[in-house]
Amino acid sequence: MSTIFTKIINGEIPCHKVAEDDNHLAFLDIMPLKSGHVLVIPKKQVDYIFDMPPNELSELNLFAQQVAKGIKSAIDCKKVGVVVIGLEVPHAHIHLIPISTVADIDFSKEKLKLSNEELAETASLIQRFL
Amino acid sequence: MSTIFTKIINGEIPCHKVAEDDNHLAFLDIMPLKSGHVLVIPKKQVDYIFDMPPNELSELNLFAQQVAKGIKSAIDCKKVGVVVIGLEVPHAHIHLIPISTVADIDFSKEKLKLSNEELAETASLIQRFL
Repeated sequence: MSTIFTKIINGEIPCHKVAEDDNHLAFLDIMPLKSGHVLVIPKKQVDYIFDMPPNELSELNLFAQQVAKGIKSAIDCKKVGVVVIGLEVPHAHIHLIPISTVADIDFSKEKLKLSNEELAETASLIQRFL
Repeated sequence: MSTIFTKIINGEIPCHKVAEDDNHLAFLDIMPLKSGHVLVIPKKQVDYIFDMPPNELSELNLFAQQVAKGIKSAIDCKKVGVVVIGLEVPHAHIHLIPISTVADIDFSKEKLKLSNEELAETASLIQRFL
């Protein structure tokens, strides 16, 4: 069954795209912990990230590294944190979150509500550094 | 300056080792979110994980993948979650955490207090699956 992420990849659901190559897509989380919170996914649907073949996992991580560098340049933060949980959408995804304190990475807190315009502007800002 | 992790690598501070190769070390977090919470580090001290050369980052992630498979086999959990924060110890480290709910990955909650014997037993159990 198609996950929401596969629908995004196929263009059936819109997203605020940050970066894309043949095998990967990066786009803004629309329920972000911080402005600039990005999801990085492989286009090939796999549920559990550690079930990926090693070469595909490496490529995903290297794509994420490039995206993280763009986020760090675009957004005011100390570092870009990484979180993989994977209990909700059965399509492996890496959260890249610009952080300045440990509390910035707390998934139990209320998510930000950003307008479509704010999200579009943030995506465009990160793209400029990629 | 040596970080606590470099001291662990050099054997100046003991750890509950789970896995090791020439360039990487995996050991139990002694303030775990869950039993089986492991830290994976490169032996070469680098502060920010995304400053690592791409080939070294790939090798670190593939080492982590192997360790995560061991954790998943050894510990009752749905998946092994991944977190990289890096605001406290300036030596890149990947948290691998056996999770069954999103709340299992909340760094704001109180850490478990496990005895040395419990930690040693957990490390030994994970090692058996590596």
